[in-house]
Amino acid sequence: MSDEKWLQPKERIDFLHEEALKIIQSKDVFSFSMDAVLLAKFAYVPIQKGRLIDLCSGNGVIPLFLSQRTKGQIEAVEIQERLYDMASRSVQMNGLEDRIKLHHMDLKEAPTRLGYGQFDVVTCNPPYMPVQTGKQHDNLHYAIARHELMCTLEDVIRVSSQLVRQGGRVALVHRPNRLVDILTLMRQYRIEPKRLRFIHPKADKEANMLLIEGMKDGQPDLKLMPALVAYTENNTYTPEMERLYSGELMEMMG
Amino acid sequence: MSDEKWLQPKERIDFLHEEALKIIQSKDVFSFSMDAVLLAKFAYVPIQKGRLIDLCSGNGVIPLFLSQRTKGQIEAVEIQERLYDMASRSVQMNGLEDRIKLHHMDLKEAPTRLGYGQFDVVTCNPPYMPVQTGKQHDNLHYAIARHELMCTLEDVIRVSSQLVRQGGRVALVHRPNRLVDILTLMRQYRIEPKRLRFIHPKADKEANMLLIEGMKDGQPDLKLMPALVAYTENNTYTPEMERLYSGELMEMMG
Repeated sequence: MSDEKWLQPKERIDFLHEEALKIIQSKDVFSFSMDAVLLAKFAYVPIQKGRLIDLCSGNGVIPLFLSQRTKGQIEAVEIQERLYDMASRSVQMNGLEDRIKLHHMDLKEAPTRLGYGQFDVVTCNPPYMPVQTGKQHDNLHYAIARHELMCTLEDVIRVSSQLVRQGGRVALVHRPNRLVDILTLMRQYRIEPKRLRFIHPKADKEANMLLIEGMKDGQPDLKLMPALVAYTENNTYTPEMERLYSGELMEMMG
Repeated sequence: MSDEKWLQPKERIDFLHEEALKIIQSKDVFSFSMDAVLLAKFAYVPIQKGRLIDLCSGNGVIPLFLSQRTKGQIEAVEIQERLYDMASRSVQMNGLEDRIKLHHMDLKEAPTRLGYGQFDVVTCNPPYMPVQTGKQHDNLHYAIARHELMCTLEDVIRVSSQLVRQGGRVALVHRPNRLVDILTLMRQYRIEPKRLRFIHPKADKEANMLLIEGMKDGQPDLKLMPALVAYTENNTYTPEMERLYSGELMEMMG
């Protein structure tokens, strides 16, 4: 197929089903997960215009999804050149160069280089694990995606607050065991939490993921959204998860 | 009935069904709600011994329930004399004077009068609303139960932290819109949040109640428990709510 021209060795193209988008993936690096897809659908986006930015963007799955929800300008920051390069080719392959601008950059430099208070929306699916917790992956690409080697949760929230305009939104996906850190840091950096949703693998299991959105200098008024349950007792997707996620990803070529 | 001897005018006795406990209630004051019952069943309790204390205890429903879960010593603090008096008569009526000790006291004085770090467990179903929010009830008993007139959330958490021993637990029931305040204050006063559970009226509705338990000087490790859904689509109790709550309360005499 002609799309093969976009690929480097050991890469494949996956198909984001409903959106008719294609994305380059590789087992050599961290592939996007359900977490990113759910964040891309959870985040508020302005429909007609605005500036959005995705941090820790990896292979660019969130900007690709967001491009289908807004006519605004989307930017993305990724520190790993390998993933930035894959994301760039995915953007070109989908003909979205005019809509999505990628930056190979340490997010900590983003406010200085891209401007303070210039964005309406910031999204981020950051590494979840503090450096001192859990075993780090031998593959450095995976390790950077999973552990806070290149940025901490505080970096993510501080930088998000610097990038977003007053009244703009910051949306994150993370693990529930970091909830106290997330909420205290958001308030510390003036991102008032407004919407919070927990994802439970099954209705009777502890949550293993959370989606949260805050507003810069917003009034305290947190909404605790209905729990999102991923699987039924029979291990099939629940209807809501089916609608949000299933069918999104179909492997197109190996 | 002979139990009538315990009653003052316009009071009634309600029956806590499963526990075979009786409690004096009155429309003149705030009656206990589902919130208190769920907290009494959510809180960790030592079974064989220990000291427990309930703050903002009202007519004593939480100490009464706790007395069925632990052989430890239970104390309770209530600032309103009218409610303290009802609670005292309920404790006597149930023959629990040896198990439950009530204090007519401002909770802010409790650490000085009852001792610092002496309790294994603190429970509290505090007033939910900051003074500046919502309309205050004309009946002062109700107003004090609903609005932070006599104590704020910060008072409750600070005093709980002062009363509980290191490694002891503090369990609260509150509203989800106060979650950020609750978590930041708990951490500020060294009550590390450990278990959090949201109650949703229906599966597809926002949560309207939360149960939270923290440990004095505990390690950060929050568990986000399964959502508790109160009602089915058909407006009947869900099986779990049925088990926890339904049948608890049966009006015995008017």
